[in-house]
Amino acid sequence: MNTASTQTPALTNVESVCPALAHLTQSALLDGVWKRPGLSMRDRSLVTLAALVSLDQTRELPYYVNHALDNGLKPGEISEALVQLAFYSGWENAVDAAVAIQSVFAARGIKTDQLAAVSPKLLALDEAGEAKRASNVSQQFDAVSPGVVQNTTDLLFRDLWLRPGLAPRDRSLVTVASLIATGQALAVPYHLNRALDNGLTHAEAGEVLTQLAFYTGWPRVFSALPVFKQVFEQRAANAQ
Amino acid sequence: MNTASTQTPALTNVESVCPALAHLTQSALLDGVWKRPGLSMRDRSLVTLAALVSLDQTRELPYYVNHALDNGLKPGEISEALVQLAFYSGWENAVDAAVAIQSVFAARGIKTDQLAAVSPKLLALDEAGEAKRASNVSQQFDAVSPGVVQNTTDLLFRDLWLRPGLAPRDRSLVTVASLIATGQALAVPYHLNRALDNGLTHAEAGEVLTQLAFYTGWPRVFSALPVFKQVFEQRAANAQ
Amino acid sequence: MNTASTQTPALTNVESVCPALAHLTQSALLDGVWKRPGLSMRDRSLVTLAALVSLDQTRELPYYVNHALDNGLKPGEISEALVQLAFYSGWENAVDAAVAIQSVFAARGIKTDQLAAVSPKLLALDEAGEAKRASNVSQQFDAVSPGVVQNTTDLLFRDLWLRPGLAPRDRSLVTVASLIATGQALAVPYHLNRALDNGLTHAEAGEVLTQLAFYTGWPRVFSALPVFKQVFEQRAANAQ
Repeated sequence: MNTASTQTPALTNVESVCPALAHLTQSALLDGVWKRPGLSMRDRSLVTLAALVSLDQTRELPYYVNHALDNGLKPGEISEALVQLAFYSGWENAVDAAVAIQSVFAARGIKTDQLAAVSPKLLALDEAGEAKRASNVSQQFDAVSPGVVQNTTDLLFRDLWLRPGLAPRDRSLVTVASLIATGQALAVPYHLNRALDNGLTHAEAGEVLTQLAFYTGWPRVFSALPVFKQVFEQRAANAQ
Repeated sequence: MNTASTQTPALTNVESVCPALAHLTQSALLDGVWKRPGLSMRDRSLVTLAALVSLDQTRELPYYVNHALDNGLKPGEISEALVQLAFYSGWENAVDAAVAIQSVFAARGIKTDQLAAVSPKLLALDEAGEAKRASNVSQQFDAVSPGVVQNTTDLLFRDLWLRPGLAPRDRSLVTVASLIATGQALAVPYHLNRALDNGLTHAEAGEVLTQLAFYTGWPRVFSALPVFKQVFEQRAANAQ
Repeated sequence: MNTASTQTPALTNVESVCPALAHLTQSALLDGVWKRPGLSMRDRSLVTLAALVSLDQTRELPYYVNHALDNGLKPGEISEALVQLAFYSGWENAVDAAVAIQSVFAARGIKTDQLAAVSPKLLALDEAGEAKRASNVSQQFDAVSPGVVQNTTDLLFRDLWLRPGLAPRDRSLVTVASLIATGQALAVPYHLNRALDNGLTHAEAGEVLTQLAFYTGWPRVFSALPVFKQVFEQRAANAQ
C-alpha cells in the first residue's frame, strides 16, 4: 500500500469539526470493517467504489481508487465497473466518477489498453436463459415501454453483461452494491442470485452488507437484510 | 444546434478513464436514445433536466440546458421547471441547478421578463376537483401534520400547479420524471394520470421511461414500469 | 442572528435564473415555514441540517449551520449530529459536511473541547431493552450477516446511541429526518417512537414534516405521513 493510502484525505478537516468521527474513521472503518475476515480487501474495495459512485460521492473517491488498486483491483476492472454503474445507477454518476479519478489513473501511468475497451470480444451468451428473460420482460412491459424493453435486451443483456473486463461474479456484486446504495432493494434478488450462481459465497455476501453499512448508511443495509435472507432461504429450499 | 452542444463536456475525461463509456455516450445516448422517434427532443430535454436536477447532478447541466434551449424549450419553461423541482425534489436541488446554469442564461442574454415571474396571473382552478383533493388529504392527515396539509393546498395546489409558465402537461411530466429519479414510484400514478389527462400520450410516456433509464439508471425505471402499466390498464378499463 | 444569516447565500444566483424561486425562498421558506409556531427554530435547524447532510447538499450548509448556532444549537450538538448521520445516512455525507462547515466553526473560534468527544462517558444503557433488541435482530439476521448484527450492537446501540453530546430526543429526531430524506420510511416507526418516548410531542413531529417538505421535497414527506399516522394511532391505542 502506498503512503497516500494510509489515512483518508479529509481526516484533518473532519477532526476539526468532529473528533469522534475522525476517530471512528480510523477505529471502526479503516482498522475495523476493512480488516475483517470473510471478504477480501479487493472485494471490499469493489463494493465500496460501487456505493460511492452510485451515491455520486467523489471527494474521497481518488483515495478509494488508489486503495482499490493497492488491494489488487485492476484498472480495467474499475473502468468496467463504471460502465456497469452508468447503466445501473445513472449516467452522470459514472461521468462524475471518471472526472474524479482521471488523475489517479494518470499518476499511475495507466494506459488506454488497460481500460474498458470499446468493442471487446463478448462472453458467450446463454441463449436459452436470455430468450426466457427477454420474453418475460417483453410480455410484461412491451405495451408500456417498448423502448426500455428493447434497450434492456440490446444494451444490457446482449452487450453490457457479456463484457469480459469484469468477471460475472464481480459485475453482479457491483450491481448489488449499487442497488443497495440507491435504495432499490426489490431488484436485489435477481442480481444477488446471479452473484451467488457465479461464485460469491453466502458468507461473502453477508460481509458485503457489513462493509456497505458504513458507506450507504445502516438503514439501506437493513432494508436489504430481509431480501438477502429470503434469497438465501429460497436457495436452501431449492437445493433440497 | 450550436457547436457547444455537439459533445458532452466531460467526454474527454471519461475517455481517459473509460473508453467504453465515452463510446456509449455517443452511440447509445447522444446518437441513440436522443434520436429515437416517439418523443420530441424538446420533451426529452425536459425530462432529462428534471432527472439531473432531482439527482443534484450539475456537472453537465449547463450543456443539457444549452441543448434544451436548442431543442425548443423556452428559458421560462426551464426556469419554471426549477420552481416545480424545488417543491417536488427538495429546495437545494433547485438552488444548485440555478447556480449551475446562471452563466448559460447570461451568455444567451436571457432577460428577467423571460423567466419564472414572481406573481403571474394564475390558470383557472378546478374548484370542485381541488376541494375534493383537499378534503381527502385533510381527512387523512390533518391529525398528523396540519402544516403539511395547509401548505400543500396553499403553496402547491392553489399556486404552484396554476402557474402559467409551464403547461400542465409539462409540469406533470417534470414531476413524474422527478418522482422516478428520486425513487418515489408510489406517487407516480396521480401525476402520470394528470400528464395523460393533459395530453401526454401513452407512447410518449413509454419513451419518457426509455429516455430516463440512462439518466436515473435502469432499476429506477424498472420500479416505475409496473406503476405505469397499472395506470395504463386502469385508464383502458375506465374508458370502456 | 448575525448579518451573514439574513439571506441565503445563493439567492442572487437563484434570482437571475428563477425570480419566482428567489421570492419563494424568502416568502414561503425563510419568512414562512421557519417562522411557524409549534416547533422551535432550534429544532427546525436540527432537522434541516439532518436533511441537507443526508442529501449531501453542502452549498448552503455553512449558512444553515450559522443559522443553527444563532438559533441555539450548540456546536457540540451539530458535531454529534454528524456522527449520527455518518452511521445513518452514509459515511461520506458526514465527511462532506465536516469539510463544508469547518470554516464556520473556525470563524466562531469554536474549540475542540466543545465538539463531539472521542470517548465521552456514555449514558446508562437499558440493558433489558437492548438485550431484547439484540436478540430479535440476531435471530432474524445472524444467518445472513453476523457482521452487521455485531456492529449494530457494538457500534450503534452500545456506543453511538449512548453518546451524551446529543439528547436522546434530538438524536432520534436527527435520525427520523435522515430516514425521510433518504426515502427509508419503513425504518421510521422505531425511531419516531423513540423520539416520542423521549419527549417529542405529536404536534412537534407534525411540524418536523412541515419543515422537511421544503428540504426533502414534498413526495418524501407524503411517503412518511401514513407512517407517522400509524405510529400516532398505535400509541393512542396502547395508551387506552
